Amino acid sequence: MGDLHVHSLLVTGANRGIGLELVRQFLGMPSPPAWVFAACRDPKGQRAQELQNLASKHPNLVIIPLEVTDPASIKAAAARVGEHLRGSGLNLLINNAGTAKASSLDAETLENMTQIYTTNTVGPLLLGQAFLPLLKKAAQGIPGSALNCSKAAIINMSSSAGSIEEVFLWNYGQVVSYRCSKAALNMLTKCQSLRYREHGILCAALHPGWVQTDMGGSGSQKPPVRVDESVRGMLKVLSSLSEKDTGTFLDWEGKVVPW
Amino acid sequence: MGDLHVHSLLVTGANRGIGLELVRQFLGMPSPPAWVFAACRDPKGQRAQELQNLASKHPNLVIIPLEVTDPASIKAAAARVGEHLRGSGLNLLINNAGTAKASSLDAETLENMTQIYTTNTVGPLLLGQAFLPLLKKAAQGIPGSALNCSKAAIINMSSSAGSIEEVFLWNYGQVVSYRCSKAALNMLTKCQSLRYREHGILCAALHPGWVQTDMGGSGSQKPPVRVDESVRGMLKVLSSLSEKDTGTFLDWEGKVVPW
Ligand SMILES: NC(=O)c1ccc[n+]([C@@H]2O[C@H](COP(=O)([O-])OP(=O)(O)OC[C@H]3O[C@@H](n4cnc5c(N)ncnc54)[C@H](OP(=O)(O)O)[C@@H]3O)[C@@H](O)[C@H]2O)c1
Ligand SMILES: NC(=O)c1ccc[n+]([C@@H]2O[C@H](COP(=O)([O-])OP(=O)(O)OC[C@H]3O[C@@H](n4cnc5c(N)ncnc54)[C@H](OP(=O)(O)O)[C@@H]3O)[C@@H](O)[C@H]2O)c1
Repeated sequence: MGDLHVHSLLVTGANRGIGLELVRQFLGMPSPPAWVFAACRDPKGQRAQELQNLASKHPNLVIIPLEVTDPASIKAAAARVGEHLRGSGLNLLINNAGTAKASSLDAETLENMTQIYTTNTVGPLLLGQAFLPLLKKAAQGIPGSALNCSKAAIINMSSSAGSIEEVFLWNYGQVVSYRCSKAALNMLTKCQSLRYREHGILCAALHPGWVQTDMGGSGSQKPPVRVDESVRGMLKVLSSLSEKDTGTFLDWEGKVVPW
Repeated sequence: MGDLHVHSLLVTGANRGIGLELVRQFLGMPSPPAWVFAACRDPKGQRAQELQNLASKHPNLVIIPLEVTDPASIKAAAARVGEHLRGSGLNLLINNAGTAKASSLDAETLENMTQIYTTNTVGPLLLGQAFLPLLKKAAQGIPGSALNCSKAAIINMSSSAGSIEEVFLWNYGQVVSYRCSKAALNMLTKCQSLRYREHGILCAALHPGWVQTDMGGSGSQKPPVRVDESVRGMLKVLSSLSEKDTGTFLDWEGKVVPW
């Protein structure tokens, strides 16, 4: 993880799966961040039990309530994080929360399409807007114009299932609503990279691999990648990102994924 | 237009712009289709005046009420078209209706993202589902397994603005909601091509060029392409599509657009 030194970061969907493991591995770094904001829908509930246990051991971990489909919740989360940071910026926003529903093309509905798009695509857009002032502040606080993740970055958790070229695992599940939302998230990432470059913010989309989580393992086959391997790989990738990588789509091993 | 001989087709958003010109040029072919279904929101209203004039001269033109964001309206349109066709299939569905709203990334909202996605992406999905039985019937009625537009096809009107690689005209307008919806439409096109191939239906996405219509000309610059040129080009492209083109994204001059 060589060069990844973030003072503060926020991970959405942090109560389980890839989000929870991201929090764990950031906390376990040799020089951990001063602030790890772990956002989840129900910080006090049973679903956040593991985060609560971690928080009792790590005073630099703050659990933030966040429903990514609700603009008011997003604004409230940004305000809370701002209060904790007391004038310093946020280096890293990881839009990890995501959802999928098994469905064939023939069975997709307006409701399903809208709900999944709202969570997987609109949420990351609104989070980028709401945290922009804090990300800009972080970028301004670090000298030099080169982009990198230790300075200021938005990382969107996409999927090769959203690669129009690859259509990863089509025969395993059509999940057209999910694929469309992730293709749109890739477009959002590209647009964010073009818009936010002038503010010193790097933006990239990642494919975590096919990972052993609730989402990855919901079908009949066991996914090949363990969640700790996936996250270790992605942190290595994050540490290596520079200027030339803004607006790109990479997998957990650093390989470019075609759009 | 050499090889394009469709017995029947439906065009959405047919009351103005590219949709209206598609209807005009199909009606003006040396051997015009037996049925041209022109779908629009308000067939009796002022907005459909030009279609009404055309219908009074062309008995093979039928105006069909259709609001593409309303699943019930889509089902009703498919039922009406089925009644007219009396047992024969529909060869060509052109998902042309689309919408955009000028907005910077900073000003996008949940409402805007949802509304534009519903029209530009979910509409074409639901139209594909609703017209599938008629498209299958058309494909079954024509011998041979090779795919082409005279047999059975779904054509989705996309845009290079939705190419994640090109991000066409970014400096002219950010329109992130529009770009995300068209990137998602490209993914939908790919998924439809994979799913509907076994039914003998070709599926492709087209970029019409930057065209002089209400949408194309809503900014400060005059678009370079006339609507009659764009449509002539696209009809030539449609006539040339074969097996190898299903699931691709082409512009009005037949060039591949990167995803
Ligand atoms: N696992 C894979 O193989 C794989 C492959 C490619 C991409 N991905 C992507 O990686 C990301 C994480 O996936 P995962 O495998 O860890 O999934 P997961 O185990 O299903 O966890 C999803 C997380 O997102 C949260 N979430 C969902 N909807 C939310 C909402 N509306 N507001 C706030 N939080 C919400 C969930 O919170 P609750 O507990 O409250 O539901 C949970 O924390 C997703 O974006 C997914 O698309 C995963
Ligand atoms: N013009 C360009 O430069 C350009 C470039 C790339 C792609 N395109 C695409 O080409 C297609 C046609 O564009 P255009 O330039 O002809 O646009 P336009 O002149 O604005 O016409 C749009 C058409 O779509 C219809 N429509 C919009 N929302 C609808 C809804 N909810 N239900 C039913 N019909 C609806 C409109 O009907 P109403 O009259 O009732 O509003 C109108 O007939 C669109 O998909 C557009 O994205 C255009």
